[in-house]
Amino acid sequence: MSPAAIKVPPKSTSKISDAAILAYMRQKGEKARAAARHVARADTGQKNAALFALADILKAEARTILQANAQDMLAGRAAKLDAAMLDRLQLNEDRIAAMADGVIQIANLSDPVGEMTDLKLRPSGIQVGKMRVPLGVVGIIYESRPNVTADAAALCLKSGNAAILRGGSEAVHSNLAIARCIERALSDSRLPPETVQVLDITDRRTVGFMVGMPEFVDVVIPRGGKSLVAAVSESAKVPVIKHLDGICHVFIDRDADREKAIPIAVNAKTQRYGTCNTMETLLVDQPVADKVLPELGRIYSEHGVELRGCERTRRILPDARPATEDDWRTEYLAPILSIRVVDGVDDAIAHIAKYGSKHTDSIVTENLSRARKFLREVDSSSVMVNASTRFADGYEYGLGAEIGISTDKFHARGPVGLEGLTSQKWVVLGDGHVR
Amino acid sequence: MSPAAIKVPPKSTSKISDAAILAYMRQKGEKARAAARHVARADTGQKNAALFALADILKAEARTILQANAQDMLAGRAAKLDAAMLDRLQLNEDRIAAMADGVIQIANLSDPVGEMTDLKLRPSGIQVGKMRVPLGVVGIIYESRPNVTADAAALCLKSGNAAILRGGSEAVHSNLAIARCIERALSDSRLPPETVQVLDITDRRTVGFMVGMPEFVDVVIPRGGKSLVAAVSESAKVPVIKHLDGICHVFIDRDADREKAIPIAVNAKTQRYGTCNTMETLLVDQPVADKVLPELGRIYSEHGVELRGCERTRRILPDARPATEDDWRTEYLAPILSIRVVDGVDDAIAHIAKYGSKHTDSIVTENLSRARKFLREVDSSSVMVNASTRFADGYEYGLGAEIGISTDKFHARGPVGLEGLTSQKWVVLGDGHVR
Repeated sequence: MSPAAIKVPPKSTSKISDAAILAYMRQKGEKARAAARHVARADTGQKNAALFALADILKAEARTILQANAQDMLAGRAAKLDAAMLDRLQLNEDRIAAMADGVIQIANLSDPVGEMTDLKLRPSGIQVGKMRVPLGVVGIIYESRPNVTADAAALCLKSGNAAILRGGSEAVHSNLAIARCIERALSDSRLPPETVQVLDITDRRTVGFMVGMPEFVDVVIPRGGKSLVAAVSESAKVPVIKHLDGICHVFIDRDADREKAIPIAVNAKTQRYGTCNTMETLLVDQPVADKVLPELGRIYSEHGVELRGCERTRRILPDARPATEDDWRTEYLAPILSIRVVDGVDDAIAHIAKYGSKHTDSIVTENLSRARKFLREVDSSSVMVNASTRFADGYEYGLGAEIGISTDKFHARGPVGLEGLTSQKWVVLGDGHVR
Repeated sequence: MSPAAIKVPPKSTSKISDAAILAYMRQKGEKARAAARHVARADTGQKNAALFALADILKAEARTILQANAQDMLAGRAAKLDAAMLDRLQLNEDRIAAMADGVIQIANLSDPVGEMTDLKLRPSGIQVGKMRVPLGVVGIIYESRPNVTADAAALCLKSGNAAILRGGSEAVHSNLAIARCIERALSDSRLPPETVQVLDITDRRTVGFMVGMPEFVDVVIPRGGKSLVAAVSESAKVPVIKHLDGICHVFIDRDADREKAIPIAVNAKTQRYGTCNTMETLLVDQPVADKVLPELGRIYSEHGVELRGCERTRRILPDARPATEDDWRTEYLAPILSIRVVDGVDDAIAHIAKYGSKHTDSIVTENLSRARKFLREVDSSSVMVNASTRFADGYEYGLGAEIGISTDKFHARGPVGLEGLTSQKWVVLGDGHVR
């Protein structure tokens, strides 16, 4: 594969007609559907062979990928992309090695497809159970980070699905270079190269068509900002696994162990500020507020975290700014924390129900009954006891890489890994049984 | 509860403005959302108490319900509804007793809510598992049969969900009489009466608004003809559990046991003609076609089943009409059967992939490898070995009553019972763990 082999997409696609883009997407869809039938039947060994091959090819073709990435970086700087976006876009030897390692990790996960569970004998004599099967064709819509191309391809392949990947236009050269590696790995393992298709037209209209073809696409996962996710969901005719806000809470109960509460409240906020599982609001039970808040206030200010508190908080931490109603609803993704003193676990649960985003919430307590109550009554995709919200993550949960995080309740909640890309069919075993 | 207490809906709602119907639906939605939070926390004993109370009240109020039903029957005859529809609409003492029994059966099912599974220790020291939780608010759209009102209410309540039930206008008096029983059972058990709301306005526009309020409704289940299901899915902004065609196949493999093949092929077609799990196409492996088709032809003709066959079938059964391409795609729901002779299991699987509706398909064979191949490769919600397709049913699978059957892959496939009305959240147990 030489750099010349990389198909360079048209710089501007705005002149392509809607009909041409629809035809392009439908062609991709048809090919994906055909490939999906094939890959659904592929055995674990064949899928793993393709993944190990992909890891090798990514490393072997690192220079080619970096050359393509340099084109994207050049264009990105010319287009004055901001520093954070350029950082996400940038590849280097280490990042390519990490990408290859991620693929190997996915190869090493157990294959969910074909797993049979719950086989029970019924009074009629039939045996009824479930078998795990791929969803079919998965569409992924993402931005900037080229490593998503390899990650998403590997997760879809391992779970027996075909994938249509639509990356950001700023990363198109990098994505297509990685796509060529994926195609080669598939062909080398005698799997259809159309199992993973990376769109070389990144026109925004491709998104609209992708979510409008339920005949070819079984689920779409938008990985990007809230506006992208909202736009995709609004018009979708196919199921969408979507991730909206992460307004996560830690509640320090009156029976919290101080030695656990302080590290958890610090870690949940300060370990990383820009992630969706970062705590945005700290809730403190009134009887322990003056025992934990002064020390927490000190540590947060050492970390440069701006505090916004309710009235009772500000009586203990007078330097905190007054929190407004808006603060309780805000995902800061920044070194800012809102703090509220509440009256017991019910008050904390009510606050979370009113202002939370059903993402991740944690209680710190030694009281078993209140821990159980919090676990049961907080309606979030991850509910924790005595642990930092930062653990809400596919790797930490043992899923391997995530394909996304769901803030919905339907089909999948929280981190979505291989299992979230599958479904279960019913299996009935009889011996000539009739009704 | 006297008959006078039954709120009689306006005969015509066509003069109600869109805005008024939207306001009505939003009010129902808000109440359902509030009730859902309450019922999600109700313990099993409280939910079962409401269900046992409902069974008692239904039986005690049988006369009131029958009076309301008589109004519907009168209006139905005046509107010249067909005999099948009038039969579905009609209630009598036995049907009310069956309705109450159904509610008791649901009370006796184990409560899925709160079930914790797969708690595993991770290398970080946290323990990660899943807890089963209600979906929230379930909307059901159905026609004619008033027993669905009691069934759906009981299933939603047992699974900790609130429900908004929109029955057919032809059954509105019966449905509202049953609704009053449900409300009383809920109140008697100190659960919010808004846990189950039956719409007293059955204007078609209620459907459009119901599927357009994701803020109040978490899933909609249309139970009715294909046109209703298609219309609901087309405009839905909330997830829909939908049931489309049931084009079910039985494949008699070359290694089938004749003593099993004949009864299965007869039962799958003739036990009931109008159900979605009835076989519509029989596939017979070429080497055994002349061993099984003559006897099957005789039995089918005794049952008055019209046969439509491929060329090879008609060489053995010359009385069969020639099957057209359309026949392979048709859900007859009638005493008609299409028969095709195929060349082995791969040919059978290919036929099912091309013409089937991913509902229920069965292989009859003694060959283990081909049985496993069929189970794995046929992409239908129920796949069977040596059993009649008629077993594809919530009761037969041990789910208790069904809330519906899904021909989708997302979230739930096949018969949907209590579990299909729930989701799983992640639970993390730590001991002060931070990242």
